[in-house]
Amino acid sequence: MKSVRELIHARSERYMGWYLEACSIPSLAENADGLDEMAEWVESKLVSIGASVERLTHDGAPDVLLGQIGSGDRSVLIYNHYDVQPVDPLDLWNSKPFEPRVSDGVIYARGASDNKGDLVARLAGLQIYQEVFGELPLRIKFLVEGEEENGSRSLAEIVSRHRSKLEADGCIWEGAGTDHVGRPKLTFGVKGLAYVELVCRGLSHDQHSQHAVIVPSPVWHLVEALNTLRTRDGRVQIDGFYDDVVAPTDADLESLEAYPYDEEAERGRLGVDRFINDDSGISLLRRLFYEPTCNIAGIISGFTVPGASKTVLPKEVMAKLDMRLVPNQNPVDIVDKLRRHLDKRGFDDIEINRHQMQHPVRSPNDSPIARAAVAASEDVFGKSSAAGPTNIGTGPMHAIADTLGVPMVSPAGVCRPESNIHAPNERARVEDFLRIIEYTDAWIIAFANIDL
Amino acid sequence: MKSVRELIHARSERYMGWYLEACSIPSLAENADGLDEMAEWVESKLVSIGASVERLTHDGAPDVLLGQIGSGDRSVLIYNHYDVQPVDPLDLWNSKPFEPRVSDGVIYARGASDNKGDLVARLAGLQIYQEVFGELPLRIKFLVEGEEENGSRSLAEIVSRHRSKLEADGCIWEGAGTDHVGRPKLTFGVKGLAYVELVCRGLSHDQHSQHAVIVPSPVWHLVEALNTLRTRDGRVQIDGFYDDVVAPTDADLESLEAYPYDEEAERGRLGVDRFINDDSGISLLRRLFYEPTCNIAGIISGFTVPGASKTVLPKEVMAKLDMRLVPNQNPVDIVDKLRRHLDKRGFDDIEINRHQMQHPVRSPNDSPIARAAVAASEDVFGKSSAAGPTNIGTGPMHAIADTLGVPMVSPAGVCRPESNIHAPNERARVEDFLRIIEYTDAWIIAFANIDL
Repeated sequence: MKSVRELIHARSERYMGWYLEACSIPSLAENADGLDEMAEWVESKLVSIGASVERLTHDGAPDVLLGQIGSGDRSVLIYNHYDVQPVDPLDLWNSKPFEPRVSDGVIYARGASDNKGDLVARLAGLQIYQEVFGELPLRIKFLVEGEEENGSRSLAEIVSRHRSKLEADGCIWEGAGTDHVGRPKLTFGVKGLAYVELVCRGLSHDQHSQHAVIVPSPVWHLVEALNTLRTRDGRVQIDGFYDDVVAPTDADLESLEAYPYDEEAERGRLGVDRFINDDSGISLLRRLFYEPTCNIAGIISGFTVPGASKTVLPKEVMAKLDMRLVPNQNPVDIVDKLRRHLDKRGFDDIEINRHQMQHPVRSPNDSPIARAAVAASEDVFGKSSAAGPTNIGTGPMHAIADTLGVPMVSPAGVCRPESNIHAPNERARVEDFLRIIEYTDAWIIAFANIDL
Repeated sequence: MKSVRELIHARSERYMGWYLEACSIPSLAENADGLDEMAEWVESKLVSIGASVERLTHDGAPDVLLGQIGSGDRSVLIYNHYDVQPVDPLDLWNSKPFEPRVSDGVIYARGASDNKGDLVARLAGLQIYQEVFGELPLRIKFLVEGEEENGSRSLAEIVSRHRSKLEADGCIWEGAGTDHVGRPKLTFGVKGLAYVELVCRGLSHDQHSQHAVIVPSPVWHLVEALNTLRTRDGRVQIDGFYDDVVAPTDADLESLEAYPYDEEAERGRLGVDRFINDDSGISLLRRLFYEPTCNIAGIISGFTVPGASKTVLPKEVMAKLDMRLVPNQNPVDIVDKLRRHLDKRGFDDIEINRHQMQHPVRSPNDSPIARAAVAASEDVFGKSSAAGPTNIGTGPMHAIADTLGVPMVSPAGVCRPESNIHAPNERARVEDFLRIIEYTDAWIIAFANIDL
């Protein structure tokens, strides 16, 4: 791979230019022009590296781009997305989120890590491969959607409609990142997600709180409802929540023994002095990878200016719940269970607004694409990999993994624990970006040559 | 009182002029110039009606004005305040809050009802009395402070320092208003208030919620803590919360039988279809007047944009609690009990920031000043009064009622249920304002002649 590495460094200015261009486009869900501009940018880059590009459209959704390039008897689907997370709270950013800044080898921008870094590195890798070796040895299907941060609501429908074009021998998903000591991370699935808003309404207006002694308070009612959902050590109490959970096998638990996880470093990074239930070791990793959860992502009601003492009986309250699910929980079923759980306990007046619904996925860790991605990462990074069963986060993998039946891997990527994805001052390292270009070529070669 | 009523109508243009002038001065806590201007305005009016005026000063607080006028062997302290509530949210006002507008017999302005209407009507009443009858038959001590809407933080200290000047045979407090069918309202005390902010901090930053499965969540922790504070029917569960509560006597409960309270009209005004515990009748009134409460005035954490689904594990949460207290609960003791209650249940990591601390007051409803105020209201309004034991809200009455031992009454006033005090489009009726001028003279005469 020496020639590849040398060429990447010779071309680094070009590819950093691509990276900065991509990060300067505000491809936010609420900015249709920004999404259009970013789709055009990705399309033009796919065309410039020799791909034929098709737009897979769906009413009301940003176009999904499908770039096809390469030949051979094996096919691989690459998945990325061109949209990014919202930038709020803007005042916590040290520079503007769409004016990328490079300082001390780090690029700061919304999307730098999730996931424009890997997207651009993969585009660059395909170009470099061709410059060094000629035609790509795989039929590559590069799928880039624009609705991922908004729940990929149209992807399942689009994949079903175009399944014959999208079927592949393996799928390279969004990168799983690089761990805190530079080991390549790989996972073979995702947790699912059921994201809902709970809304409780009462009075017609906020009132002087002198009335609180006789008037039912929506915010107290919601606090009481929330309190029925979880024990203090994080066990979810929604009736039937764990019914379909697949317990890890003995082999699964054994493989956790080899998983490198620096608990003290993680606690330091997160700013906490203990994990839930004071967990550690295998018990902690089992919880991390194999347990579902129910999180309060936000709550708001009434008067919230710090330090001031306005006495209000609030007319309503809203809380956001995100439930991360594990195989074989079904997000639609889980929200139905939440509805029944609340109804049964006198909380039928609390509205549930359904937002994201994503199925969990677990793919084998020994499929050809999985083995190719692991082997290539150990070559390029020069370190053993940190392979976990699934990503602890969520992605719209279900449509491809289950609808199409394609084995999945989230390979190494630019994202590090300190990358602040979904948060202010998102960042990635330039050296990681260049390494993922090289890694792209390495897994292409490995997958072209591996025993199926 | 015919001559008084006739003179009020002859002079109505003058007194409406005073009222509009007072309401045009922005005497907000954050506007020192506005407070100064309003203090000067009140001082000049007190001087113009013949009072000698003294300013009672206290470091960092707006001046308290003390106007003295009249003679005789009986003395009465009149309490009002010249500051007003904040005007936010400004965009919900139909006219500017400090450009008073009169339309269809209603005056719209911040302070029109709370409490410049009663303040100006009382000043006018003192002038009218002298014009009709000559010298005032009571030693009147007109105390007007400028810090009421900000918790009257200096009043207790000022009252202690000047107690010999302020002692009186009775106190006429801020008006208790007029009910929805025009009956004069009177009360003989206030509920107390302990207002605190609860803050729970955890992680150093908001994190991607994929970590929620192993990282303790401050917002869940606070929800669990809040849930220990109250039962679903509103009973406060803080250890020892009710220890000092004085239960209503049989006579107290009997007097509630006569209290006019239109439950359906109140539910309609509040926009609710039931009261707590489906209460009604005496049980509802007992709760309203004699029960303390614990209200969540506001709560905020994490991501709160409606409809969007950002997956955050929030680093912290803040909730505002206001606890309305009844005799003999002590706000300082109640917050100490809250602290111990939380500590005992594993919530010692939740901060309590103390804000307003006001003691409850209950004065007898048959003191001479109380009897004079009730009798005069029935004369002037031509309707039986709605006399409740205490105001269901809070005011800084403790300094005068308990420190000085003066019997208190909040007599009839211009405030009606629809007056929008503390809210946009605050208002009062011109006819109520003129009636309170007349009522001022009526209770002066009644108190001068009543058996002590």
